[in-house]
Amino acid sequence: MNATATATPELAPESDEAFLSTPFVQQLIKQMRAQDTHGSWEGKTDLQLLKPFIHTAEERRALPILGDPDPETLWHLEIFYNAIAVAIERETGQMVSPMMKMSHEGFGRMVLIAGRLVVVNKQLRDVHRFGFPSLAKLSDAGSKFLTEAVAMIREFPAVAQYGA
Amino acid sequence: MNATATATPELAPESDEAFLSTPFVQQLIKQMRAQDTHGSWEGKTDLQLLKPFIHTAEERRALPILGDPDPETLWHLEIFYNAIAVAIERETGQMVSPMMKMSHEGFGRMVLIAGRLVVVNKQLRDVHRFGFPSLAKLSDAGSKFLTEAVAMIREFPAVAQYGA
Repeated sequence: MNATATATPELAPESDEAFLSTPFVQQLIKQMRAQDTHGSWEGKTDLQLLKPFIHTAEERRALPILGDPDPETLWHLEIFYNAIAVAIERETGQMVSPMMKMSHEGFGRMVLIAGRLVVVNKQLRDVHRFGFPSLAKLSDAGSKFLTEAVAMIREFPAVAQYGA
Repeated sequence: MNATATATPELAPESDEAFLSTPFVQQLIKQMRAQDTHGSWEGKTDLQLLKPFIHTAEERRALPILGDPDPETLWHLEIFYNAIAVAIERETGQMVSPMMKMSHEGFGRMVLIAGRLVVVNKQLRDVHRFGFPSLAKLSDAGSKFLTEAVAMIREFPAVAQYGA
């Protein structure tokens, strides 16, 4: 990690370093770097790379909520849940696939499925404004999904490994 | 049911009557009738109503498989799985929701979810040509999904009722 407090002062209180190293955030950084096929983000710190997931209250208010969500926002939403899926795979050895359904105007549903088990089940609302107020909240949200999914797979192994 | 062998001779060997009364096919007919908001299908027999789900070998060959599947075909595919979902609900009292993901060129995935349990899991291929060679095959396919889903819900009630 090459993030420093000087590079992005608004995002980097001292505690950010700790959140950057959680298994979920590490995976999210990896997923973002994997999208950078042209190497144009190589100069970016990890914190800068995560900026699209983090909105200050003011930035959040500035996002329009009419019509369909922005493709870029949907893309970040998918990367967020993909990172959770990969983190679950690493922890349990179980393959996990995401499925998303957007119904209308920023409403939808996201599930992560291991075998026949829905390990993450999230009703999506307000997708236009997908993001978190801080790195700490981003890390907590992802880590909570990860912990619950891993616990579910351990509770219902026959369902997670159904047909495998 | 008002289907008669004379109305659609190509679809109605004597045994069709039996298939028209299976719980799955009954539900599929109901789902189709529910789409008919303008009453324009009132004169159609049940067999005629199910014609879009049934392709002779020749009709099947005539369907193009390039590009994205026809919206009408996707709509029939969704009605087919919706009918299975509703039939499972009637049999088990468990709410069931479909989720579909179309990836490209007629490939995709359809799941039916009860609580945290994936009760139907179907990799979709060749969606352009979605349909069955006969009413018997249509009935068998739907009834098989229904039977397996009901058995799964009974085998894993804690997962099907998770969080309820």
